[in-house]
Amino acid sequence: MMPVKGVTAKHPGDLSFSWRNVRTCFCLVFIASSLANFGLSLFKVLNNPISFNSVKPIIFRGSVLLVLIVALRLAQQWPTLMMYWHEVEQGLPQYPSQVGKGQMGHTIRMVMLVGMMLSFAEHLLSMISAIHYARYCNSTSDPIKNYFLRTNDEIFYVTSYSTALALWGKFQNVYSTFIWNYMDMFVMIVSIGLAAKFRQLNNDLRNFKGMHMAPSYWSERRIQYRNICVLCDKMDDAISLITMVSFSNNLYFICVQLLRSLNTMPSVAHAVYFYFSLIFLIGRTLAVSLYSASVHDESRLTLRYLRCVPKDSWCPEVKRFSEEVINDEVALSGMKFFHLTRKLVLSVAGTIVTYELVLIQFHEDNDLWDCNQSYYS
Amino acid sequence: MMPVKGVTAKHPGDLSFSWRNVRTCFCLVFIASSLANFGLSLFKVLNNPISFNSVKPIIFRGSVLLVLIVALRLAQQWPTLMMYWHEVEQGLPQYPSQVGKGQMGHTIRMVMLVGMMLSFAEHLLSMISAIHYARYCNSTSDPIKNYFLRTNDEIFYVTSYSTALALWGKFQNVYSTFIWNYMDMFVMIVSIGLAAKFRQLNNDLRNFKGMHMAPSYWSERRIQYRNICVLCDKMDDAISLITMVSFSNNLYFICVQLLRSLNTMPSVAHAVYFYFSLIFLIGRTLAVSLYSASVHDESRLTLRYLRCVPKDSWCPEVKRFSEEVINDEVALSGMKFFHLTRKLVLSVAGTIVTYELVLIQFHEDNDLWDCNQSYYS
Amino acid sequence: MMPVKGVTAKHPGDLSFSWRNVRTCFCLVFIASSLANFGLSLFKVLNNPISFNSVKPIIFRGSVLLVLIVALRLAQQWPTLMMYWHEVEQGLPQYPSQVGKGQMGHTIRMVMLVGMMLSFAEHLLSMISAIHYARYCNSTSDPIKNYFLRTNDEIFYVTSYSTALALWGKFQNVYSTFIWNYMDMFVMIVSIGLAAKFRQLNNDLRNFKGMHMAPSYWSERRIQYRNICVLCDKMDDAISLITMVSFSNNLYFICVQLLRSLNTMPSVAHAVYFYFSLIFLIGRTLAVSLYSASVHDESRLTLRYLRCVPKDSWCPEVKRFSEEVINDEVALSGMKFFHLTRKLVLSVAGTIVTYELVLIQFHEDNDLWDCNQSYYS
Amino acid sequence: MMPVKGVTAKHPGDLSFSWRNVRTCFCLVFIASSLANFGLSLFKVLNNPISFNSVKPIIFRGSVLLVLIVALRLAQQWPTLMMYWHEVEQGLPQYPSQVGKGQMGHTIRMVMLVGMMLSFAEHLLSMISAIHYARYCNSTSDPIKNYFLRTNDEIFYVTSYSTALALWGKFQNVYSTFIWNYMDMFVMIVSIGLAAKFRQLNNDLRNFKGMHMAPSYWSERRIQYRNICVLCDKMDDAISLITMVSFSNNLYFICVQLLRSLNTMPSVAHAVYFYFSLIFLIGRTLAVSLYSASVHDESRLTLRYLRCVPKDSWCPEVKRFSEEVINDEVALSGMKFFHLTRKLVLSVAGTIVTYELVLIQFHEDNDLWDCNQSYYS
Repeated sequence: MMPVKGVTAKHPGDLSFSWRNVRTCFCLVFIASSLANFGLSLFKVLNNPISFNSVKPIIFRGSVLLVLIVALRLAQQWPTLMMYWHEVEQGLPQYPSQVGKGQMGHTIRMVMLVGMMLSFAEHLLSMISAIHYARYCNSTSDPIKNYFLRTNDEIFYVTSYSTALALWGKFQNVYSTFIWNYMDMFVMIVSIGLAAKFRQLNNDLRNFKGMHMAPSYWSERRIQYRNICVLCDKMDDAISLITMVSFSNNLYFICVQLLRSLNTMPSVAHAVYFYFSLIFLIGRTLAVSLYSASVHDESRLTLRYLRCVPKDSWCPEVKRFSEEVINDEVALSGMKFFHLTRKLVLSVAGTIVTYELVLIQFHEDNDLWDCNQSYYS
Repeated sequence: MMPVKGVTAKHPGDLSFSWRNVRTCFCLVFIASSLANFGLSLFKVLNNPISFNSVKPIIFRGSVLLVLIVALRLAQQWPTLMMYWHEVEQGLPQYPSQVGKGQMGHTIRMVMLVGMMLSFAEHLLSMISAIHYARYCNSTSDPIKNYFLRTNDEIFYVTSYSTALALWGKFQNVYSTFIWNYMDMFVMIVSIGLAAKFRQLNNDLRNFKGMHMAPSYWSERRIQYRNICVLCDKMDDAISLITMVSFSNNLYFICVQLLRSLNTMPSVAHAVYFYFSLIFLIGRTLAVSLYSASVHDESRLTLRYLRCVPKDSWCPEVKRFSEEVINDEVALSGMKFFHLTRKLVLSVAGTIVTYELVLIQFHEDNDLWDCNQSYYS
Repeated sequence: MMPVKGVTAKHPGDLSFSWRNVRTCFCLVFIASSLANFGLSLFKVLNNPISFNSVKPIIFRGSVLLVLIVALRLAQQWPTLMMYWHEVEQGLPQYPSQVGKGQMGHTIRMVMLVGMMLSFAEHLLSMISAIHYARYCNSTSDPIKNYFLRTNDEIFYVTSYSTALALWGKFQNVYSTFIWNYMDMFVMIVSIGLAAKFRQLNNDLRNFKGMHMAPSYWSERRIQYRNICVLCDKMDDAISLITMVSFSNNLYFICVQLLRSLNTMPSVAHAVYFYFSLIFLIGRTLAVSLYSASVHDESRLTLRYLRCVPKDSWCPEVKRFSEEVINDEVALSGMKFFHLTRKLVLSVAGTIVTYELVLIQFHEDNDLWDCNQSYYS
Repeated sequence: MMPVKGVTAKHPGDLSFSWRNVRTCFCLVFIASSLANFGLSLFKVLNNPISFNSVKPIIFRGSVLLVLIVALRLAQQWPTLMMYWHEVEQGLPQYPSQVGKGQMGHTIRMVMLVGMMLSFAEHLLSMISAIHYARYCNSTSDPIKNYFLRTNDEIFYVTSYSTALALWGKFQNVYSTFIWNYMDMFVMIVSIGLAAKFRQLNNDLRNFKGMHMAPSYWSERRIQYRNICVLCDKMDDAISLITMVSFSNNLYFICVQLLRSLNTMPSVAHAVYFYFSLIFLIGRTLAVSLYSASVHDESRLTLRYLRCVPKDSWCPEVKRFSEEVINDEVALSGMKFFHLTRKLVLSVAGTIVTYELVLIQFHEDNDLWDCNQSYYS
């Protein structure tokens, strides 16, 4: 996604950004292509009555476009950021064994794998469902044409059907869906990385928990903690727009899907796809939220070890350290408007449940005492 | 509920967990039986249109099943936890008299007794109401069969009626209701225990309030306070899933009952059962909330005594102590998503009232100025 | 309201409580009478369909009854509380002039006067409106009888009309309305008193703002601040149930009135009474909220003067003082569920506005673009 | 807007307020004129059924009137305030270059320019739209008369049409709209000024970040920080009523426009004006919120530099400084009911979105699975 040279290299110093790189060119082509598609979607939506549901294509394509542009800008800062990350990493207490070292990489790979597989499965189901759908409201006799007419209606709203455009539209859809999923996964990966840094520091503190340590030990740890905080801040500045887009997107799509959930499904294929897609969406949102919140959780955990410093080792440096841990809110944020913590997850969940309850209220009005209802407690 | 050996023994060291214990076996049988019942409920619900009200059996049986599994896992940690609890208890300043010592046990016994009696009364009323209900929509001529067909409709949805299955279903219902009530009571008991530990410490501090105490006194108290905090944390880690299930369950059932409250009751037996059940539910929820919040309240109370330390006794240890009390949020939590404090109770109450108001709004539209309305202020 | 002997005496030591006092007897008679009336209301409401509006008499009479009982219990603690208040007052830095001394008393008298006058005006309007109302739906030919039948319908729901009962009901209504208003005013008066104590301390601090003061000066002020906090706490424990009842009552009545505001008024007398009553209610609620919040505001103001302590005078005592001011939340509360601060006022106002918006949404659905609407910006 | 003499002078000492000043006289005339207009609007609204939408003219004219009166009162304090501002500015570390010095003035001028241009464009569009509107529901044959009858319906509700009155009404409308826009811009300008002061201090701290500085340096900075805080407080006291009016006005108008957005537009001119006006309104609200929040953001930023103070330079003064930064909530506020921070922006946005969702729910009930809907993910 990000046009950075040398991502496979081992040392962050090998990372670099250049406008002439082949990745950068591809990226610019994708942006242009997405822009065209977004324009078509916008044109179609504005020519129809606007509703909460009908703006979905604009929001989907618009946020993908926004993320692409942000990613391009981020690519230019990325080498510098990674250099700083590397520096902070060097300064941290080392893992005692090789096992701890590889754990973070392993988690990231697992998240990528599971995420990508689920997203692929979802896209397949979406295609099957769309084929069914296309057959259900068949406008022409050609099933493939029907399918493309349906999934890329914004293109064929302005021009007549052509296979080249259909393939472009299909490619655009696949690519956009990939970006849309990658966006969340990117936030997750950065969160895992930052949380791992805090955990590394906490592990060292746990090893010396309750022991008498020299003030210089605490001073060192405090500076390391500060460095991770600064790193966290820099990463947040760099990616907070992506975080914001990812969060609001997930929230919007969950609400739209819930709204749709109250309609009866036209076929079983739809129902299966619909519920799989809804659960995938909620699961992904929860995963992003919880992984992001783990940065904040880990940063607070440090306090637990500072509380156990014995009376004799209590020195101004420990005091300063613990005050900094208490008062700083270290967390990824969405443009500083909200911090990603566990409380946020709860309030978001609460909002969604409230919305669903109101929706149900508007649609359901049957007598709950009739004999066909099951009877409980 | 928890298959721990030696719960009647006096010393926590006698507690132990074994897979071969007869309690463990019973527990596994119950889990299997609940699982079967849950599967049947799920099957029935999925084959009918889904609504806010119709998922009630799944949520009821699902959460009972979840609690059973969590309880089994908790049973393995229980002996270690209790050993730690015992240790912390030993380190605390002793009660001056025998009266204080027995108070906590007395409170716990009272809560158990009242809770169990109310839950038993509720189950009896539920049976009476269900018998009425079964007669009201009688499908067969046999009243007992009618009753079982109604209360265990998920079983007889797949098979035809048989007395053995009916008895199994009845037993399952009684047992589930017991677990469902015990879940809340368990959270209450743990809260009472933890709050009592803080109170024990606070009592000692109150006795020496405003006096000149040596720094070593404060250092000791601070470490004791810390130990209770750690105990609180460990207990919270162990039971927070149960707390979460208990809370969300209560919230969901109150909402469902309020939704039902707007329908006219088919009979007086129903009305009596319904209002008794609703009040019992709200009362139980309030009791769990307030007892849980008392842990937080007691932990904050310590501050009051630290504020009265005279100028001459003010030393770094007192300062550190008071800073820790101010900055730590010691409370039971629901998976760390929310802390059980008094503010939470208010916001939950607010949510329920708002929900009820919206419900009423949807159902009621009569003119408030007509002559049959009573006239006030 | 409170049966305390010697309220007109100058020294709080003259206050005392006795069960044989004539005030206590009156109070007990009132409680019994209110209880009877409450029972009659309850009986009437339960025999009619329950709605958000129809429970108004129960809530009105129930809360008056509750407040009466709480006031009786409070009367027993009152002499002790006032002794403590007097002690705290003695310890405070004295007002430099006679003017400051009398200001608090003056404010309290003004609040009492304005409150009572408005409440009297409201009751008069209520009577006029009720007479109109009674004529409007006249059931008998006697206008006075009509009036009493209407305003005391809970009595004549069980018995036939009699002048003695009507007079009792009338007296009961007047007395209840008085208590209902006095409840809010009582909370206001206590708040004014507590805020005045903090202001007295702050005035002294302002006089020495930015000057070099000895540590003993700060130590003394800190203890005085602590004493007012403790006083605040004790008062809060004593009256928080009344605060709670007063707040929830006001909130409930505002909501009911807003609900009623959407119906067309049967006559001009009603409209005048209705809007006067609504504005009086909102104004009174705002007054209670803001006066209560002023306790918290004044307690925070102390910080402003501590911030200006010059570098040389900065000593551990000032540090301790400022930390206590920062970390303590000194405010009246409703049973500790919520603290009365300015933020609360905003959130309450927000809730009411939201409720009104939803109400309007349910009732209004006219086209906003028609030619009879005025046209703006 | 504010009748202060000498606003073009370079030194704040030249500012003065006098009742005999020609600006003051103009201001008083405007207030009288607005008062008359407000009275007419009130008269018209009270003679028609009241709804959420119909009270718009009262709220518009009422808040303009309120702001005018507040501005007059503010004008009297303005010279003193500006003198204090000047003093604080003198005490601050100077900008190293001339560029930094002019930046604030430049930003303010840009904000003024863009704001005024947009507001002018909006008023033009409003006129075009109103002319269309007047033709659409033409009551007379004269288009100019129609236009004035429509835009000043509150005047011609009581008297018959006359050109002089129409011109007065037109002038009144233009002037009110100007004030209405200026109100927001005034809050923005004050915020920019205050944020610039904090930035000036932060720039100095950044220059010496991580270096060993003498305690006297920190002491000086702390006092400067304190002075800006006090300035912030004084400005807030002076303008918080305007902030409050500006905020609630924006919120109310956004809600009314959103309510209107669900109706179909009578013409394209309306649609263009409507959406331009809505976007302008939302943009302006966001701008006010974010500029105001920047005061708080900048004040917190100081902490970042204090965290980097090396171990050896850590002295009581730095500690005191950092504690003050942590614990003081420095921000503009709306009558102390809410502080203007980024969190507020989020909660306001959330409220508006929720309101819009509920509105849509009430108006839209179409099947989302029909074939004419576009099909996505």
